[in-house]
Amino acid sequence: MGTSRLETFADGVFAIAATLLILSVDSQVSSGTTHLGHDLLRIWPSYAAYAVSFVTIGVIWVNHHTLFNQLRIVDRAFLLQNVLFLLCVAFIPFPTRLLAEQIRMHGASTAAVTYGVTLTVTAVMFNVIWLYASRGGRLLRADRDEAVVRGITRSYLPGPGMYLAATVVALVSATSACVLYGAITVFYVVESSVFGRAHHAS
Amino acid sequence: MGTSRLETFADGVFAIAATLLILSVDSQVSSGTTHLGHDLLRIWPSYAAYAVSFVTIGVIWVNHHTLFNQLRIVDRAFLLQNVLFLLCVAFIPFPTRLLAEQIRMHGASTAAVTYGVTLTVTAVMFNVIWLYASRGGRLLRADRDEAVVRGITRSYLPGPGMYLAATVVALVSATSACVLYGAITVFYVVESSVFGRAHHAS
Amino acid sequence: MGTSRLETFADGVFAIAATLLILSVDSQVSSGTTHLGHDLLRIWPSYAAYAVSFVTIGVIWVNHHTLFNQLRIVDRAFLLQNVLFLLCVAFIPFPTRLLAEQIRMHGASTAAVTYGVTLTVTAVMFNVIWLYASRGGRLLRADRDEAVVRGITRSYLPGPGMYLAATVVALVSATSACVLYGAITVFYVVESSVFGRAHHAS
Amino acid sequence: MGTSRLETFADGVFAIAATLLILSVDSQVSSGTTHLGHDLLRIWPSYAAYAVSFVTIGVIWVNHHTLFNQLRIVDRAFLLQNVLFLLCVAFIPFPTRLLAEQIRMHGASTAAVTYGVTLTVTAVMFNVIWLYASRGGRLLRADRDEAVVRGITRSYLPGPGMYLAATVVALVSATSACVLYGAITVFYVVESSVFGRAHHAS
Repeated sequence: MGTSRLETFADGVFAIAATLLILSVDSQVSSGTTHLGHDLLRIWPSYAAYAVSFVTIGVIWVNHHTLFNQLRIVDRAFLLQNVLFLLCVAFIPFPTRLLAEQIRMHGASTAAVTYGVTLTVTAVMFNVIWLYASRGGRLLRADRDEAVVRGITRSYLPGPGMYLAATVVALVSATSACVLYGAITVFYVVESSVFGRAHHAS
Repeated sequence: MGTSRLETFADGVFAIAATLLILSVDSQVSSGTTHLGHDLLRIWPSYAAYAVSFVTIGVIWVNHHTLFNQLRIVDRAFLLQNVLFLLCVAFIPFPTRLLAEQIRMHGASTAAVTYGVTLTVTAVMFNVIWLYASRGGRLLRADRDEAVVRGITRSYLPGPGMYLAATVVALVSATSACVLYGAITVFYVVESSVFGRAHHAS
Repeated sequence: MGTSRLETFADGVFAIAATLLILSVDSQVSSGTTHLGHDLLRIWPSYAAYAVSFVTIGVIWVNHHTLFNQLRIVDRAFLLQNVLFLLCVAFIPFPTRLLAEQIRMHGASTAAVTYGVTLTVTAVMFNVIWLYASRGGRLLRADRDEAVVRGITRSYLPGPGMYLAATVVALVSATSACVLYGAITVFYVVESSVFGRAHHAS
Repeated sequence: MGTSRLETFADGVFAIAATLLILSVDSQVSSGTTHLGHDLLRIWPSYAAYAVSFVTIGVIWVNHHTLFNQLRIVDRAFLLQNVLFLLCVAFIPFPTRLLAEQIRMHGASTAAVTYGVTLTVTAVMFNVIWLYASRGGRLLRADRDEAVVRGITRSYLPGPGMYLAATVVALVSATSACVLYGAITVFYVVESSVFGRAHHAS
């Protein structure tokens, strides 16, 4: 029962956080607008932000899935760390909306920093979870493949650093930071596909 | 563990995207209206849009379910393709609201095209997922029924073309396009019921 | 795989529809109000509507759960009927908000009728699902208890009639109809507890 | 089938209620603000409220998980009690928003009392569920560890009293009550980690 119920809760938060992103796109076009075509073009940053954040949450979900494949047991401390991690994931829609709205306004840099801080903290929490679970094999399956375990550690560790670097860039240039956020997502998509291998279906 | 967790995440996105559709209906009646009866009649396009999009998402879910019944394993690339596919599904509430609001306004054609493009891309992504999984039997069960596999391919392939055709019609007549969107949904409901057969419960 | 995935999707819709009900309560108190205490007392119909609709959705969920305990297999037609049924369930938050807002206004009767029609159609769809599944034992388990099957039929059949009667009352008196909606929910809670028996946990 | 489906529904409500909390933070920053940095600092009570309520819902979820680990069967009355309990959980986002908005305004005390009453009732309902399940071992597993059962009872019983005490404090000082709400959450996080032990993964 251990991991299965944590997965249900986590997948729920992932799915809702990702799906709520559309509300921020939706609110950008006012009801009864008489310039719909113009509005739909004008809000292109909202589409980009929607896509980047959706895929980012999706990649986090895929990695969470990989991590859980290695687990044998969960304990209370691990459950509570996951709650804190999910608290970060559920926060993502807020800076996503700010960034989409402000990228061509005065608050672009502030919004980009907020977005970056959120993802940096999320990446840190992901590493905390994984290090807690894997330190000394604490929660891992007995039949784990150590190469996979080291591979997971190797692929997660750079996350906080990359997001922190992009956040520092955001202090100077919001646009450059946005490009970096998108690039990190693409990096993880590619890295994930290369690193990935087939898992047996249950 | 493979497919079960992807199903949980996907079913979460399907369920939330479908259930969020009611928010757009809800926002059409302002709080404290003094013409409730009139308002409820006036917003009939919202009911139609709600019903068509809910059933469309439902049919996509049923087909996703059929597809997964044929899978033995999933890999990282497949997970990420599913994230992109779900990104499209979660987008559906936005053009649904636009179409319901604008069908009797200046932006009817634009809204109908937006709706059509969204469903065309969603249908393309569905085919991408299925072709990736089924090409050479890559992710399929060893005990699959080839007739079922071919039947799935046959029923998915026309989707993008049908939605693209309706989208082209939307450039000329939004109303005709809406009728086509409804007709495609009805077609898939009927096709699905005829093609369908009983699956053993787990 | 059959029933388990339908349950995940259905439970998602039930959970979201129920949880979204709080948004309508929330929107009744404007941000930055200077009469919070007064506002919280003024909106008591929203609490009542929240409670009645939440428990109603909960009772529907419990009954859906009972129904699925009797199933062996599901087919495509059954999946699609469930989509239509869930379309009704996901609609419930809309008339719930209307009724809470309008009960002391001009549109009370209209809102109460809208609420009643929604629940009548939902009850009809529930019976359609059950009759399709149980007719001739089509989708039922081989080891079913016929007494339980008859008990389910007996407890579902009066639903549409009770809600239709309350809807007719709503044409005359919204307040009386609200009392009836609450009474039907209480009836089903009591009936459910009496009829119920322990199910073995999986 | 018994407990698994109740868990899916409950986890859905937990996940949605927690994830919806971000909407109240989001609504505090108006679209197109020209003082984003200032706004983001000004709304710090919303972050605190978000964190406390998210972790509170998370702790409730962890405890619900612990409780269900002890169950063998569920009956109808237990399902319906869970519906009432989840009705309380889904209500939490509303007083959370009120408290965050009003803490520096006239309605601080009223909002803090509303928050406290909600959590007191939620804690009472949690005890009702557990006492119903555990009284005479009614729904418990045959192979349960009586020490764990007594430990659960011991850790749940003080909840209503602690929240009630904080609610009484809220009548006098909203700020002190907020500190207490945060302290209770921290207490349960710590208590949970200490009490916790590893569960075998399913």
